[in-house]
Amino acid sequence: MIFPTCMSDLKAGPFQLKCVDCDGRYDPEEILYVCPVCSGVQKPGRALRGVLEVDYDYDLLSRQFNREYLAGCTLRGTRRYFPLLPLSDEKYLSPLLIGGTPLSGGERLGAHLGMTSLYLKDESRNPAGSYKDRASVLVVAKSLEMGMETVCTASTGNAATALACVCASQGVNCAVIVPESAPPAKLAQMLVYGAQVFPVRGNYDQAFDLSTEACQRLGWYNRNTAFNPYTIDGKRLAAFEIWEQLGQKSPDSVWIPTGDGVILAGVAKGFRDLLGLGLIDRMPRMMAVQAEGSAALVNAFESGASEPEPVPGASSVADSIVVEAPRNGILALREIRESGGRALAVSDAEILSTLALLGRLTGIFVEPSTAAAVAGLAKERRAGRVADNECAVLLLTGTGLKDIAAAQRSVEMPPSIDPNFQALEKALV
Amino acid sequence: MIFPTCMSDLKAGPFQLKCVDCDGRYDPEEILYVCPVCSGVQKPGRALRGVLEVDYDYDLLSRQFNREYLAGCTLRGTRRYFPLLPLSDEKYLSPLLIGGTPLSGGERLGAHLGMTSLYLKDESRNPAGSYKDRASVLVVAKSLEMGMETVCTASTGNAATALACVCASQGVNCAVIVPESAPPAKLAQMLVYGAQVFPVRGNYDQAFDLSTEACQRLGWYNRNTAFNPYTIDGKRLAAFEIWEQLGQKSPDSVWIPTGDGVILAGVAKGFRDLLGLGLIDRMPRMMAVQAEGSAALVNAFESGASEPEPVPGASSVADSIVVEAPRNGILALREIRESGGRALAVSDAEILSTLALLGRLTGIFVEPSTAAAVAGLAKERRAGRVADNECAVLLLTGTGLKDIAAAQRSVEMPPSIDPNFQALEKALV
Repeated sequence: MIFPTCMSDLKAGPFQLKCVDCDGRYDPEEILYVCPVCSGVQKPGRALRGVLEVDYDYDLLSRQFNREYLAGCTLRGTRRYFPLLPLSDEKYLSPLLIGGTPLSGGERLGAHLGMTSLYLKDESRNPAGSYKDRASVLVVAKSLEMGMETVCTASTGNAATALACVCASQGVNCAVIVPESAPPAKLAQMLVYGAQVFPVRGNYDQAFDLSTEACQRLGWYNRNTAFNPYTIDGKRLAAFEIWEQLGQKSPDSVWIPTGDGVILAGVAKGFRDLLGLGLIDRMPRMMAVQAEGSAALVNAFESGASEPEPVPGASSVADSIVVEAPRNGILALREIRESGGRALAVSDAEILSTLALLGRLTGIFVEPSTAAAVAGLAKERRAGRVADNECAVLLLTGTGLKDIAAAQRSVEMPPSIDPNFQALEKALV
Repeated sequence: MIFPTCMSDLKAGPFQLKCVDCDGRYDPEEILYVCPVCSGVQKPGRALRGVLEVDYDYDLLSRQFNREYLAGCTLRGTRRYFPLLPLSDEKYLSPLLIGGTPLSGGERLGAHLGMTSLYLKDESRNPAGSYKDRASVLVVAKSLEMGMETVCTASTGNAATALACVCASQGVNCAVIVPESAPPAKLAQMLVYGAQVFPVRGNYDQAFDLSTEACQRLGWYNRNTAFNPYTIDGKRLAAFEIWEQLGQKSPDSVWIPTGDGVILAGVAKGFRDLLGLGLIDRMPRMMAVQAEGSAALVNAFESGASEPEPVPGASSVADSIVVEAPRNGILALREIRESGGRALAVSDAEILSTLALLGRLTGIFVEPSTAAAVAGLAKERRAGRVADNECAVLLLTGTGLKDIAAAQRSVEMPPSIDPNFQALEKALV
């Protein structure tokens, strides 16, 4: 890691990097990950200390990004929000459409849950099929801006496919370190994108530590989630889209499948930016849904702790949100609490049955982690904590096509028949 | 099948159904599939006779759909082209975003092929992951308009997942008949969407015949490709999008993975409509790419025949374009020839290596049938039949996530390593 200069005399500019623990501010022109002061007390295998976020000068920003700009802008996806990105030139952005995903009304699911204002933000429509594409587009753009040749990440699968996809679209080298148990679809996908893949005999947490070491020693740019501040910043763009798609309004709540807590922190940051820009007047409740077998944030939320305790041997059918130590746990807990949200857990059985329920009622096929968020909303609704008319947005973070084994467990395969009408008629009965 | 009245005295209206063989015209308010006159000479296991297309009154249509309409329209996807749909009310359209897919510049692939104006129309971004969604949205809308309760299709997989997806989004019953050998991902996906799935011990052609019989005897609405005229009509919308995305220009050629020939006929019809509306002045060349093991159209194109001879036992890694008898073969051949296009075939080895090449150079992960179109362009380019500056659009029809087995054959899985830096360094060498 190249250590940064702590800036006593910041240049005038629209943004800085700010430590979420000590409020220390840093020059974004240095290659910087976590706060060099606060990360000094980092313990291995725990939530990250000294996570940085991009801190904008809202006065400067609101001159470029405002209702007039939006009314005249015909761009979709990441490019639409270029004035909100910590990036010097649009040319660094991937030619792929990333973001710009549909927000469709979930009328049939809403009716099933007795809700009148339910929305589905379908992030499975991103090019590599998940929300992680939003972090990767910004990280790869920053790597090009800074002249780095190789970008590396640890991943349970989706972050690696996202990074490999964006790198391929721009000819940037990509190295990914993943547990060898990652779903075969995700492994095949990242290989097709031409990434250099290192499957490790270990879990995500071990892959995370190895990738950090590899970046330090090999001069690779580190995309690790939360560790790289631009992962959070890229992930905030869905908030702006939701706000626009709801007619420039904030929803009452956003329901987010949660592992490391980076998507949640990113979406919350987006809404905080909207607040800072004077475009909304209140934050939506940030609702974190975890799998029961990987519920470090839920445990901390319920006990009142400010930092999650790791869950050794965390496991669930929802592989994308299985982590022992949520890397962005400290910040995510703060965002949940300050927004009046909650963290809750659902079982693998609830996840699988909800995966099929969502498909049947909406025509959207998601992976188990995404189904967890929907199951979480259903559970809170049953508990009487969600009003009939609450404007709730479900963040559908990943496509079901990446985990067919889980989908197969959620449905029953009918027996084959002979290709004649009598056989079909018999099967109908 | 309910037999239609052949109309001697057509009502004034923006569209009729027209037989592509005899030019006979029919009232679209009847439930009608193929031309009742020409389908009388239908032979089993051959291309369909009497395929109907929607014939528009371009004078009427151009009052609703023109450059002024487009300049003021902020809608995306199917709804944007509602004035061009044979549909009485927008309320019948799925709430899902279907179409509105990105057309991105294929700079890196273009450079690889020595081409300066290559575009990628990424249809894998549709909700169920393939071009077939475009046919299904219109067919399901028509089924609702006509008050049908169940829609049925035969399929190699993608058409069934597309139909199941759209039906789920609107609460319409869906019955699908597929070869039991369909890729497991597609089977799981259609089951998650809640379709009633009948896997048959037989091939697509047998599934096609059984579904037609089932619709006749059970009163289901038949979505079979080409047999239902709205499949072709729904599939033409990509042409309008390409035209808009190129700055209201026609490309020089469109490269289309081809099995039954319905996507090709649909795209060609879209460009013919643009011609009829006076919005373009020439057709792009329609380029059909087939798999060598399923090349009925190529054989007919080369021999000069007007109708393809079936290829018994057709097979290829590109399952989505494997058919013995291209259902829409007669019309597809005509469109290819009249546009100055070609039909050509590529091998399974070319398909698999191109799948990985495309992923590496563009960040787009496709299924084998889609890779076939890209391999076809590369082959024609090598043969000197594609100019450096030809404006070529590759129609990327389906996502690679539905056929992981094929993707795995296109890349090499690296061995697992222990999670430490020494092991990684060794693997790097």
